[in-house]
Amino acid sequence: MSVFILLNCKTYDEGTGANAVKLAEACRDVAESAGVEIAIAPQIPDIFRVASVTDVPVYSQHIDGAGPGSHTGKVYVKSIQEAGAVGSLINHSERRLTLAEIESAAEALKKNGMKSVICTNNIATTAAAAAIGPEYVAIEPPELIGSGIPVSKADPGVVTGSVEAVKKINPNVKVLCGAGISKGEDLKAALELGSVGVLLASGIVKAEDPKAALYDLVSLI
Amino acid sequence: MSVFILLNCKTYDEGTGANAVKLAEACRDVAESAGVEIAIAPQIPDIFRVASVTDVPVYSQHIDGAGPGSHTGKVYVKSIQEAGAVGSLINHSERRLTLAEIESAAEALKKNGMKSVICTNNIATTAAAAAIGPEYVAIEPPELIGSGIPVSKADPGVVTGSVEAVKKINPNVKVLCGAGISKGEDLKAALELGSVGVLLASGIVKAEDPKAALYDLVSLI
Amino acid sequence: MSVFILLNCKTYDEGTGANAVKLAEACRDVAESAGVEIAIAPQIPDIFRVASVTDVPVYSQHIDGAGPGSHTGKVYVKSIQEAGAVGSLINHSERRLTLAEIESAAEALKKNGMKSVICTNNIATTAAAAAIGPEYVAIEPPELIGSGIPVSKADPGVVTGSVEAVKKINPNVKVLCGAGISKGEDLKAALELGSVGVLLASGIVKAEDPKAALYDLVSLI
Amino acid sequence: MSVFILLNCKTYDEGTGANAVKLAEACRDVAESAGVEIAIAPQIPDIFRVASVTDVPVYSQHIDGAGPGSHTGKVYVKSIQEAGAVGSLINHSERRLTLAEIESAAEALKKNGMKSVICTNNIATTAAAAAIGPEYVAIEPPELIGSGIPVSKADPGVVTGSVEAVKKINPNVKVLCGAGISKGEDLKAALELGSVGVLLASGIVKAEDPKAALYDLVSLI
Repeated sequence: MSVFILLNCKTYDEGTGANAVKLAEACRDVAESAGVEIAIAPQIPDIFRVASVTDVPVYSQHIDGAGPGSHTGKVYVKSIQEAGAVGSLINHSERRLTLAEIESAAEALKKNGMKSVICTNNIATTAAAAAIGPEYVAIEPPELIGSGIPVSKADPGVVTGSVEAVKKINPNVKVLCGAGISKGEDLKAALELGSVGVLLASGIVKAEDPKAALYDLVSLI
Repeated sequence: MSVFILLNCKTYDEGTGANAVKLAEACRDVAESAGVEIAIAPQIPDIFRVASVTDVPVYSQHIDGAGPGSHTGKVYVKSIQEAGAVGSLINHSERRLTLAEIESAAEALKKNGMKSVICTNNIATTAAAAAIGPEYVAIEPPELIGSGIPVSKADPGVVTGSVEAVKKINPNVKVLCGAGISKGEDLKAALELGSVGVLLASGIVKAEDPKAALYDLVSLI
Repeated sequence: MSVFILLNCKTYDEGTGANAVKLAEACRDVAESAGVEIAIAPQIPDIFRVASVTDVPVYSQHIDGAGPGSHTGKVYVKSIQEAGAVGSLINHSERRLTLAEIESAAEALKKNGMKSVICTNNIATTAAAAAIGPEYVAIEPPELIGSGIPVSKADPGVVTGSVEAVKKINPNVKVLCGAGISKGEDLKAALELGSVGVLLASGIVKAEDPKAALYDLVSLI
Repeated sequence: MSVFILLNCKTYDEGTGANAVKLAEACRDVAESAGVEIAIAPQIPDIFRVASVTDVPVYSQHIDGAGPGSHTGKVYVKSIQEAGAVGSLINHSERRLTLAEIESAAEALKKNGMKSVICTNNIATTAAAAAIGPEYVAIEPPELIGSGIPVSKADPGVVTGSVEAVKKINPNVKVLCGAGISKGEDLKAALELGSVGVLLASGIVKAEDPKAALYDLVSLI
């Protein structure tokens, strides 16, 4: 089983513009050295720039299911694809979508050969997301996001419960574990609980030395 | 199997205030006469009034998952329950919710012994809704709502596909069929496609004689 | 100048259903005794019930600008009016609306001879709301709502600045002062800053003795 | 008075990615030749790319007021600025915002030396937007957007009424006229009604020859 790490730059200044490019370069170096897949989700205006200078897989932080047409300000699948993205987060807790929007966004990505990561907040919503059939579901209890307390320690049951629910509904869907993840032991624990990887942000993006933090993250696998 | 009919008053003038009470009385008369369950979903300010004068089951048109507290303007489960509602629509196409809100609304209803009807727009979202475990999922292709063209005729596959998907995910969940339903033949077709009943609105509420329209609706079962 | 007090029940259990009726009775008693206008904004399912048993002015906590039609779950002006409301809060910080929705809601109320109270968060949004021409604008810095720290003490400048801005844009609009208000000295300070009254909630609704708290509120005017 | 034309690419395929770059080049050529200011609002993932290859002023189609931090998927002012944008549309009818969001977005742009164009739907919302103090307000009756019927012809009163309302509230704010604009006579009429320019989209973006359409647009001024 291959491990998958997805680094979310959010709107941190440390992950904006030229800083996003630097983070992507750190992802590339650590991924090559450790033999794991590390992808980055920069802000949407930074997708083109990041994708132009590295071959790190680039995800959008958000996508609307909207097609071509009169959808000013919406994030259109072909626009992020042409800018260089290979997939997108959908329904992050900081950018929630309706159920219909989640489904149309996942469908738009699938039709264009791209990967979707649907974010969820508990076991029941993870089960619902799995029924839609994305590449990944990322379970992130909102109260732990940015807390520094890893979900794998604070609430391991929500991870194992999510993994079980997904297996029952759609075994092709893989589970990522998010919220409070930053260290090697967190990733190790996440994998032991049945997830295939992690979605993380501040622990790396705002670290004094992001590349060192990434090396620590992958040190126990 | 018992048939379930849910009449949505929307914000039609013909279903507002005193008119909602009259519609509820028509529902009661036809339900008793035909031996089927007919429930009504009046506007939220009308729940108390409708529930006070008939014993027709009253559903809210919307509920927020929000608990007690600082949630001005939100629809709180205990408020609609104390007003006399026995359940609620969730995520109607005219009042979409995020996935997390759908789940918390369904959970709030369940904890209070009330019934939930999650509205969906296609087979994939129906499957997702079923994973949450409501009493009912109501499949309503948005393009047919209010069209006068019954979904059972225009797109029978979305109904049978929804019934199959729900059976696989959670066989306790029952499927309602909505959009364009108004006549006896529409209800009959809906039941033949595997649903247990219908969610309908303008075909009855805006009929010249709503009680006659309800009698026609149940005439073939 | 007549003082106006508007009591928001939010979704507090202490302000739900039968408790809302009791709060309305307390408002009536204190209003009569003190000779000030005290109105109540119960939850939407409670409007009919509260308006049926007292003649305290009843406001909705929220209204959608939507007209009659296919607007399931929306709060329609005629529905709250027929239930007994005389006005509505618009755009409370816990139920924000788009600018177009705020304007259409205020317009719908005005056309039906009802009063609107547009809630705002700072001087610039207060000026914008005044340009729409409601009966009242209620300035409530969100960080002070429910804090117990009265805006009149924590940030008097936002109140006087709002009063000035409104006077310049549309002198017919009256300013209410909200957030952290609960005591007689808070109301007195609010009036001294140029507002005509207060919008308040937890300080009264969750008080051990709401009627006594209301008597204290009006004790210094 | 200098004329300002802002071309919105929406999510049209003809305005996505490499096509947005081509449109920007057409804007540049026509602007230079006609001596008017023509700016472009490509999709957000295309801002960097468009701004890198031309010196046409680039606007974002949307911005969130959100600052740096935990705001996944939001459009952060520093991100679009570093990507090369000089301003942003705010509250387009296809991407409506709450009043508080409109104000914080306009404030964020102003603080960073960027220009804001707040879109509105009628005279009252135009007045409200002017009170916030953006560079431009763009009045676009939603029913005319994409209709091919220019607002200047269908409803000239909404333009002149907007211009008057803005003059009274904040004379520093300039009015753009949108919805249905595509030809030279439309721009001429818009200027005669008191606006300083136009916001337009499909009439140019989906034209067989966008550069020729732009030449026609500026031919009568």
